[in-house]
Amino acid sequence: MEKKIFALKGNICFSRDKHDIETIPNGYVVCENGICQGTFSKLPERYQETPCLDYGDQLIIPGLVDLHVHAPQYPFRGLAMDLELIDWLNIHTFPEEQKYADLEYAERAYTIFTDDLMHSATTRACIFATLHTPATMLLMDKLEQTGMQVYVGKVNMDRNSPPYLCEKSAAQAAQNTEQWLLACAGRYKNVKPILTPRFIPSCSNELMKQLAKLQKKYHLPMQSHLSENLDEIAWVQELCPETQFYGEAYDNFGLFGQDCPTIMAHCVYSVPEEIERMKHHKVFIAHCPQSNAALASGIAPVRQYIDQSLKVGLGSDIAAGFSLSIFRAMADTVQCSKLRWRLADQSLSPVKIEEAFYLGTKGGGEFFGKVGSFEPEYEFDAVVLNDTALRHPQELTIKERLERLIYLAEDRFITAKFSNGVCLFDNMK
Amino acid sequence: MEKKIFALKGNICFSRDKHDIETIPNGYVVCENGICQGTFSKLPERYQETPCLDYGDQLIIPGLVDLHVHAPQYPFRGLAMDLELIDWLNIHTFPEEQKYADLEYAERAYTIFTDDLMHSATTRACIFATLHTPATMLLMDKLEQTGMQVYVGKVNMDRNSPPYLCEKSAAQAAQNTEQWLLACAGRYKNVKPILTPRFIPSCSNELMKQLAKLQKKYHLPMQSHLSENLDEIAWVQELCPETQFYGEAYDNFGLFGQDCPTIMAHCVYSVPEEIERMKHHKVFIAHCPQSNAALASGIAPVRQYIDQSLKVGLGSDIAAGFSLSIFRAMADTVQCSKLRWRLADQSLSPVKIEEAFYLGTKGGGEFFGKVGSFEPEYEFDAVVLNDTALRHPQELTIKERLERLIYLAEDRFITAKFSNGVCLFDNMK
Repeated sequence: MEKKIFALKGNICFSRDKHDIETIPNGYVVCENGICQGTFSKLPERYQETPCLDYGDQLIIPGLVDLHVHAPQYPFRGLAMDLELIDWLNIHTFPEEQKYADLEYAERAYTIFTDDLMHSATTRACIFATLHTPATMLLMDKLEQTGMQVYVGKVNMDRNSPPYLCEKSAAQAAQNTEQWLLACAGRYKNVKPILTPRFIPSCSNELMKQLAKLQKKYHLPMQSHLSENLDEIAWVQELCPETQFYGEAYDNFGLFGQDCPTIMAHCVYSVPEEIERMKHHKVFIAHCPQSNAALASGIAPVRQYIDQSLKVGLGSDIAAGFSLSIFRAMADTVQCSKLRWRLADQSLSPVKIEEAFYLGTKGGGEFFGKVGSFEPEYEFDAVVLNDTALRHPQELTIKERLERLIYLAEDRFITAKFSNGVCLFDNMK
Repeated sequence: MEKKIFALKGNICFSRDKHDIETIPNGYVVCENGICQGTFSKLPERYQETPCLDYGDQLIIPGLVDLHVHAPQYPFRGLAMDLELIDWLNIHTFPEEQKYADLEYAERAYTIFTDDLMHSATTRACIFATLHTPATMLLMDKLEQTGMQVYVGKVNMDRNSPPYLCEKSAAQAAQNTEQWLLACAGRYKNVKPILTPRFIPSCSNELMKQLAKLQKKYHLPMQSHLSENLDEIAWVQELCPETQFYGEAYDNFGLFGQDCPTIMAHCVYSVPEEIERMKHHKVFIAHCPQSNAALASGIAPVRQYIDQSLKVGLGSDIAAGFSLSIFRAMADTVQCSKLRWRLADQSLSPVKIEEAFYLGTKGGGEFFGKVGSFEPEYEFDAVVLNDTALRHPQELTIKERLERLIYLAEDRFITAKFSNGVCLFDNMK
């Protein structure tokens, strides 16, 4: 972190809550030692000597947060989207992930993933790697260099997986995972490890017990999948006949947010008891609408999660989702919520654009602490956006320009990006 | 049309039918006097002297076809997507369209629309203007300069419309329309007029009668809207109690494809009799999935239309749709068909990527004649795509690269564009 103070000048947009987007035309946001000092329409007296980067008429927003993305699947984004979850895993995904046993392939693939994430509007991400420790470390090394603040998980899977992509035993899996954790210790400033059991069908009870021990010992956050697809849910019920609902298969091992921050991706079909349990344990839901359409999983009732004040952020879910853009995840959140309202359940009103922006910034950001807003005390992540390619003959408010960017932004619109108070790149320099 | 012969070299992709995408790696497509002479993996002896533009490893596909787009709504794309159809028209759309009474505003707005359409992958479009004749002519003048082959319609509306956007009488509307048609005659090489009653709620019976006369007199193709939204459909039933279904309100005036090629946008809720009538009259359906999600209209049963061999193409439906990209319309077609399958009707299987590509090229292209393919005798429209920004560590087939472009293409990937045998731009020159 650069121990210094600076201001950015431009059209500031951010969320304090899910209802409104606050905009400050030609305003300032100040960062001191990596921490946001707040936003100002005029720079206060005490900051008159502060260096100020003036981005003119461009928009400045908090960095976006991707709560669910599979780095090794990035090579086949936009491909092979012709199956539902379980077949898609077996036929397309597992063979791809197996390639990461080869560090040369991992080097090529993870270079591309890291570069593209770096040049997106995302500043924070929770990333699945594969079960291979060397390739996972290679990914972490690469991400560390970017300055983005990310969690990366070595994946655990010890059952119902092809022999070429399966840990030999729960004990071996736990041992590998602990060795990985020890190798990570002290190695990274920006990247942190996160416990990553793939999902219940891939993880034996014994593995879950071992991972719970590791979680307690190292106080590790966790990420996994939950209630994504109907066949998957039925399979979990078969595998865990003692559970009343899918989430209990995590909960019964203490791996459902009891002790450590936990993300569950999807939650398309969570039953009321599961929702209640997630709320109780403050589990974060990673809403991944593009993926849920692509695998024909369905549309999660995100309106309900928002209204019941569950913790919700957005995920690209590469490569069941095809786009790494969290702007596109926001747009898909709104679009899919309208279709769900129309086709399935008119008791849940469509998600508003303000809410979608909140989910992709402060909503997901909360998993990282005070992240995703320009309120004072927030860690300073910012993205500067040049929207001049989206020409318009009429006057637009700052909020309208942001709304349009949510639907139409491309990575090339990003002028500069900051995370944790550090400038990651600035094309104006 | 340039009276000459040339070949393009690159990775050729096109559809002969809806089931397959044909690819010819490092192949050739030949154009003579604006007409495609076919594709070749080696250039035949007779073309050895033919000038050849070599695009190396880039992809060459037929130009895309947008069967439904509202040019005057382009300024508010990606904005104001918080209402259903009728409220959206009254609150957001009609006030925007009214601005085109002012030619200065029209000049600014239509310059942007024309530029952006020109730099998209679309080579053919069916475009709604507004009811204003001078602004419509201005739009047509601008489009003529691009070389794209487009239909443009001066809109007719004489009832249930705000006073500031309503033709005074059916007779006046017909007179204005005929004057517009006469003004167009002989003026354009690339742009053609198309009869454009807005939709049944906006058009009195008398207006429909007058327009039917004009259609017969000038043999004009027609475009309008059909069965988009449930409230709209109920309203049409009130307005036209003699009809059995919405489409009959066109059909009863002879304005449902009986005599001239006709496009109906949306068809989200077409009843079996309406589908049968469309099939009988060879009406083209413009499928607009992004718009149908944005206005919470629903998802059209496009699988049914494809399987029953109706004529179907894709529409961006700016500005209920937010993106001008027909690639994105293809992706949305697939995504929405999966959601419809999951949420509403498992008898209609999801649309495949091959089918979506077909709809956005040859399917919609058929409205223009032999358009949208590289088969011999087709009018020569082509787009050259540089996909090097979509990096990948593994080998990909040409078809896989195309599939990925459907999900992730940006306009900046377009190297060159040809329509009707003419090069509209070539960034490699």
